[in-house]
Order: sequence, then C-alpha cells, then structure tokens
Amino acid sequence: MASLDAFFAPRTVAVVGASRDPAKIGHLVTKYLLESEARVYPVNPSAREILGRPCYPALESIPGEVDLAVLAVPAPATVDVVRECVKKGVRAIIAQASGFGETGEAGRRLETEIRDILSSVPGDRRPRLLGPNTLGVYVPRNRLDTTFTVRERSPRPGPGDIAFISQSGATAVCIMEAAASMGVGLSAFAGIGNKLDVDENELLDYFAADPHTRAIAFYLENFKDGRGFLERCRRITPRKPVVVLKAGRSASGMRAAALHTGSLAGSDRVVEGALRQVGAFRAYDEEELVDLARVLGQGRPLAGRRVAVLTTAGGLGVILTDLLESRDRGVGLELAPISEEGKARLRSALVPFASVHNPIDLTANSSNQHYADALRVLEEEEGVDAILCVMQFQSPYVDEALADLIIDRFHHGPKPMVVVTIGGELSWRGLRRLGEARVPVYPSLWRAVRATAALYQRGCYLARCTGVTAQGTAAAQLRPRAWEGGSCHV
Amino acid sequence: MASLDAFFAPRTVAVVGASRDPAKIGHLVTKYLLESEARVYPVNPSAREILGRPCYPALESIPGEVDLAVLAVPAPATVDVVRECVKKGVRAIIAQASGFGETGEAGRRLETEIRDILSSVPGDRRPRLLGPNTLGVYVPRNRLDTTFTVRERSPRPGPGDIAFISQSGATAVCIMEAAASMGVGLSAFAGIGNKLDVDENELLDYFAADPHTRAIAFYLENFKDGRGFLERCRRITPRKPVVVLKAGRSASGMRAAALHTGSLAGSDRVVEGALRQVGAFRAYDEEELVDLARVLGQGRPLAGRRVAVLTTAGGLGVILTDLLESRDRGVGLELAPISEEGKARLRSALVPFASVHNPIDLTANSSNQHYADALRVLEEEEGVDAILCVMQFQSPYVDEALADLIIDRFHHGPKPMVVVTIGGELSWRGLRRLGEARVPVYPSLWRAVRATAALYQRGCYLARCTGVTAQGTAAAQLRPRAWEGGSCHV
Repeated sequence: MASLDAFFAPRTVAVVGASRDPAKIGHLVTKYLLESEARVYPVNPSAREILGRPCYPALESIPGEVDLAVLAVPAPATVDVVRECVKKGVRAIIAQASGFGETGEAGRRLETEIRDILSSVPGDRRPRLLGPNTLGVYVPRNRLDTTFTVRERSPRPGPGDIAFISQSGATAVCIMEAAASMGVGLSAFAGIGNKLDVDENELLDYFAADPHTRAIAFYLENFKDGRGFLERCRRITPRKPVVVLKAGRSASGMRAAALHTGSLAGSDRVVEGALRQVGAFRAYDEEELVDLARVLGQGRPLAGRRVAVLTTAGGLGVILTDLLESRDRGVGLELAPISEEGKARLRSALVPFASVHNPIDLTANSSNQHYADALRVLEEEEGVDAILCVMQFQSPYVDEALADLIIDRFHHGPKPMVVVTIGGELSWRGLRRLGEARVPVYPSLWRAVRATAALYQRGCYLARCTGVTAQGTAAAQLRPRAWEGGSCHV
Repeated sequence: MASLDAFFAPRTVAVVGASRDPAKIGHLVTKYLLESEARVYPVNPSAREILGRPCYPALESIPGEVDLAVLAVPAPATVDVVRECVKKGVRAIIAQASGFGETGEAGRRLETEIRDILSSVPGDRRPRLLGPNTLGVYVPRNRLDTTFTVRERSPRPGPGDIAFISQSGATAVCIMEAAASMGVGLSAFAGIGNKLDVDENELLDYFAADPHTRAIAFYLENFKDGRGFLERCRRITPRKPVVVLKAGRSASGMRAAALHTGSLAGSDRVVEGALRQVGAFRAYDEEELVDLARVLGQGRPLAGRRVAVLTTAGGLGVILTDLLESRDRGVGLELAPISEEGKARLRSALVPFASVHNPIDLTANSSNQHYADALRVLEEEEGVDAILCVMQFQSPYVDEALADLIIDRFHHGPKPMVVVTIGGELSWRGLRRLGEARVPVYPSLWRAVRATAALYQRGCYLARCTGVTAQGTAAAQLRPRAWEGGSCHV
C-alpha cells in the first residue's frame, strides 16, 4: 500500500479519542467511519464499547495492523499519541486538533516535537501525517469520512470527479455543502491544515495519478514550496486540469491569512503569472473554484471559439451573446455562424416564430422534441465548436425527460456542451440531476459563459502543449489571444 | 383613477379570449385573475360560463365599467378588439398576442392600425395600451396576474420592494422564478413588449411615485426615447435607485436583439457613460440585475468605505477580504479597523481561538449568542461603516433563530449590513427566510461583496447629490474614487 493510499483507502482505521458522547468530535468521527468499508477500532481507555464496537484502551492493544489512525484528542495529547502510532507501526495519521502552529509559539513547539518524533523513524516505517488542525479526509466512493460536522447540518457531496484539497477546514465544509446542493460530487477531499508533513504538492502528485480524479481543486492560503507546486503543475496540467483558489491576494487578505493559518504569503502578482504559465487555472472565489473544476473535469476542451447558443427565451440569448462576445465584462468568444442548410433544417423542425439564427430561440413553446432536433442540427454544423444550452422547464411541452436528453447529448454527442438553467424548483431539480450525471450546468448565465471560456482556454493550452509534438494545425487553428475581460488565465 | 393605475390596481378586468380549455392562454389568465381583488369578466362569444363565472359574448355586453381589458386573442383579432375597447370606454388594454412588429412588415402594419385607432380618440377618453407581445402585469400584493405561464411550473415572487419592467417576457419569467426561489419579492412586474403605447419611461415615472416600490429594475433591449430615460433617471435616482440591464452590448448581441424584439440599439459606450452620469446602476446579467435591485431597495447606503467582516470560517474571511480590498477582481473597499476596546469586548465574548481582528472569526463553534455579541460590538464601533455578515448553520450551537437575530439587526441596528451564506439546504432555508424579511442576502461571497460595493457607490452618489445642497462634510468624507474592478457605476 503506497503511503498516501492509507489516507484514502485504509483497510483498518483506529479512532483515538473515540467517544460515547454524541457532542464530541470523537463520537462523530467513529460514527461516520463505521459506515465506511474500513474496519474501525475505537480507542479510549475509559470505555469498553462505543457505538456497538469493542473499544480498545490504547493503540497497542489493537490486534493486527492499523493503516490509518485518526487522532481526535487535544493538541498536547496528540504528541503522545503520535509516539504510540510510531510504536504500533501505523501507516497514516490524521491529527485533527487545533492549537498548534496557527496559535503561536507554544503550538509551534508542539509541532516541532511531532516533527522530531516522525523524523527519528526510518523512512520506510515512518508514518505519514495529515494536519494538524485538519478535518482529515472524505472519500465519497468508499464512504470514508473523518470530517466532524454533523451530517444533518452539512450534507456531503456524492462521488464525483473532483479532488478537493483545502488549507481551511470550515471553509471546505461550506464549499462542499454548496457543491453537494448542486449535485456536484468529489473523488476525494483532503484537509491539509498546518501541513506539518503531507502538503499540497504531495497531494497534487497523488491525485494526478488517481484514476477517480479528473480535476484537482485547491483552496490555499500559502504554498509550502511554491516552486515545487509550479513544477508539478507544468507536468500535470497537460493531462489533468488544476484549479487554484489562492487567497490572501490583498494586503489585508495576507494579514488575515497569517492570523488564520499562520501563512506567510508571497507577492500575489508572481503567483498570478506563474500559475498561468504552467497551465493552472486561478479562481477568485469559492463559487468559481467549483464552477471551473467541474467544467474542466467533465467537459471537453473547445477546438475553436465559435459557440452556438440554444435558448427558449430571446432575452437570455441576447444576454448570453453579450457575455460571450464582449471583451469588457465578457469572455471574447464568438457566436458560431449557422449554415443555410442548418437554418433550413431548424426552420422545418421548430415553431414558426422560432429564431434559426444563432442564438437559436426555441421560444417559450419549446418541447423536448424541439430541443432534440435543434441539438442534432447544431451537432452536425461544422462551424460550431461548442453548444451553450439553456435548459428551461416553463413550457408545458417540456418535462423532466429533457434533462435526460441533454445528459445523453452531453455524454454521447460530438460537441462540447455547457448547460445553464434559470428558474425555481424545476430548474434546481434539473440542475441537480445533470450535476449527478456529471454534466456541467449552472444557475446563472455568466457562470455558464465563464465555464465555456474555461473549456476554450483549456483547448488553447492543450493545443500549445501538443503543438510542440508536431500537431501544429490544431494549435494554429485555435489562435489563442490574450484574455482581457475573462476570468481564467491560461 | 390615474391611467396607469388601471393596469396595476383595476377594480374590474375583462379577459377577451377567455377559454374553458386549460391549455389556452385565455384560460390561465382568467383563472389567475379570479384570485385577484378585481372583479373579472370573461369574454367569449361561444361560452356561457368559464371557471364558474358568467361569460359575456363581447365587451359591450359587460354591465358597468371596465378598467382593464386583457386581450388573449391572436394578433389580427387584437386590432378589432382594441376598437371595441375604445367603444366600451376601457381605461387600460394589455395586448398579449405576438405576431406584431417583431415579426416583420405585416405585423408592423397591424401596429399602425392600432396606433391609428388609439390616436383617433380624444386624450381624456383614450385607453392606454401595454404591449403588444407582452405577458402583461403581475402585482403580488393584490394578486393581479395576467402572465400566462403555468404557476406550478413558474412560481411567482411574493410581495416585495422591486418594480421589474421587462422588454422580454420569457426572460422575465425566468428571472422572476429565480428571484422567487431566493425569497425575493416584487412590488410589481410589467412587460412592455413592443411598447406601442406605454413604454419604459412612463413606467419609470409611475414606479418612482409608487409607495410600494423601493427600487426599479429594467431589462431592456433598446430605449424608446433614450434622452427621456436619462432625464427621468437624473430626477429620480436621488430618491429611488434604478438598475438597468441593457442587453445588446456586443455586435452580435445587437443583431440578436434586433431579431428578438425588433430593437435597433445605439452605441453601447454612450449608454454606459450616460447611465453612470445620471446615477443609474448598470447590470450585465440577470443575476446582477436582481442582486443590485434588492440591495439598493432594501439596504442603507454606506457613509464610508470601511467594512467589518463577521465569519465563522477563517478562509471565507480571507476570500472576502481579498474581494473587498483588491482593485483587480475586487471592489476596492477597506477592512474596518477595530478599536482596542472593541477587540477586548470581542475577546471576552467569544471562544479563545476566535479572531477579534477584522475579519472577525467566530470559528466553527459559533453560537447564536456569539453572533449577537459580535454584532453588538461591531454596531458600536465608530470605524465601521458596514457589516458583511457570513451566516452559517453548520455549528451545533446555531439554529434558525440566528436568521431572526440577523433580520432584527438588519432592520433595527445602526449599521448597513449585507449577509452571505454558503452551504446546502440549511443555508438556502436561511437565505429564503432573510429574503422574505427583505434582508439582502446572497449565496456567494462575490455577490455579497458586489452588493456591499453598490451600497457604497449609492452612498457616494447621494452624498454628491446632497453635497450641492450644502452637506459638504458628508460628501467629502466619502471621497468617491474611480472604480477599476467593481461592477457597478455611479
């Protein structure tokens, strides 16, 4: 078992500080881990049984090997338990307590003690440590969950494509909850906390090689080794997209980050340019982080800048056109021209008042069949590089099968597609349905346009990468230009 | 009864083209109007009763006066019915049919016929006409609803502060649905369609004087009389905020608008500068339109640029700080300094690990009481011009009473406040609760920051306006600067 696997797919997990008290972290962690595929050993000297499982007085009394130990004990006790983990031969440690380096000198000394304990162990037997000051990990596909917010209050995302690494725990909880409410799933979450041992670079390598992960998203307040991060990005981004929300951009933001996680951030302008150069996307808020990660993980890069808009409301088509084409408060893409043959086909398939010019307007009387017919025409148009599909449920001739139709065309059609839906409960239901089917869909026109632009930028980047290996035609065709108004940088 | 009142508070409404067929527009309009406070007369020569009400063969057979006639008949028939409306002395006409000027020459001729009929009537007896090609009106407080999307598919917003005027019907439906799902209400909606008679300028005047309206939001594809619009804004914006989503900014967007509503738009740069000069806010997408209208209608303008951030997740505080202070992808406001006394008070009220520096971090163990205590301190800080409050429900010590507490402080506290909540179902429940209580709250950090910036810009604008009338101190204190990264323009 490669060392980081013990964090994400352990066969056995010990919870040190397991508790019978439902208000305690050690209770929640035990309870949620019992739903996982791992064998769980509660450890607590003053209990004989916790949640129906026999409880062990100490790590050493556990029979057999322990892949992962979750330390739900206060900061000072954590040091001793790390020592016991070494003795027991534990492979991976999650140190959840706060009260370490982020709080000042005394906490930093505790971290040094732990570091000394770990480095005294020969490399091949040395446990790896995530944290301290971390929620730990959450892996939806095997239900491994060491995060300790009450699930009824913080629903977790389902299985998905995105690996999410965060330097802030509470922030990650909010972001994951919001993602879950849109049907967006994760391949895994890892909280790196104070990064005493495992850091963002190692996790970047790990998820770059993880077959379940199609995009890697970071919330970071500083880089432990910025140069190393950039070198990894340069190697990884041609294969797998990386999105970074690096906070602490402003002077006050840097101070706030220093107070929050003890980070000392460097100049932000350097970060900005460097990330762009190595093909990583930078996000500027929590919403953009998830929006970009999902579209880059799920969508196909654009081979050109010509977008077809399919709408049921003329005004939404006009706004989308502005956002797509404008360079000021827009992304500088182009509306695809529709061929005369394509227009004739659309005319015969749609209602008389429909617009067959791009943006294609099915009108408020759209039906599932109109959507199907129009999508087929656009899929076969040579001049169309991507389809931006407005999915609306107000028309009485549309029902939930529309969502399935769009899911099918997204996964089996020949063109990249991004979906947007503006409305209430029916829209949100469709949005969650598409989200769970791993289709990038957004409840706002701007967010859908930004996502489309990200796929275009990704296409340009990949063309430049492969252009080096003699696929010059594709690279030239994409004509990458400088981005003025857009939100992503490649 | 002033003529436009007949559109928004009619005592009697006739539905011409009322229908027993649930799939027909004339059925839906009748059904929804029957829930209003108005007396409703279905008109249809081939039915004796519709939805339990006696049906009249023609307008002239209705006993008594008709304030409003809703014409749910096709375009050619509309011309004749307008003639009958004149004969009957109807005060206001909503012409719903499409197939007029927006479709070409034949439709334009129908419009000319209607214009001729109306202009042949002496001014004091001339009916006013909304449309054609319009959903008509929706007034939540008296349940007057002539829009004809099925309610189960398109839930309507409740009563609120925003008057919404739209040139596109289907787009307005989507926007209203999305607003409703956030608990955002309207004072009224009016679809102006082809603006044959009543246009955006007259409605701007009307809602400027409407006591139920605190902000006026427009979706427009062109101006019928741009100079008149700007003159009205100059007069109205010192009293009531105006937000304009003027689509058709890009070359293709203008073409799309011309195809959609037959609009011929002028140069966009002129629009941009002119709106700014007369104190109107410009929105660039459907989300920003509602976001700005609600915060400007409900929030208090800022007296300075210093914002206190209250959060329960350190990382969210850092991101907010970046968005508030940065001029690049931020709004260029400032983090408020907290006095030593204020910090001491926060320290004694909060948990030991809480941060008492701005951003104030209650930590994930926040309670309702912590929120209450921290808000009280920030309210009393002289250096704080506004509070940006992150409302999170993950902590077990927080419950739904937190929403009520924040609602109370928003309405009764001394400082302007904007609220943000990031999460799943509990967040959305709180968001809707605040929305219904007319508190500006957003499900994204950026949207909350943009709203805060709008209140600051509004404050600067009002200070400049009143500065002329010798309140120079306030105006100077605000030091308005050029906005580089922000999204609003005043």
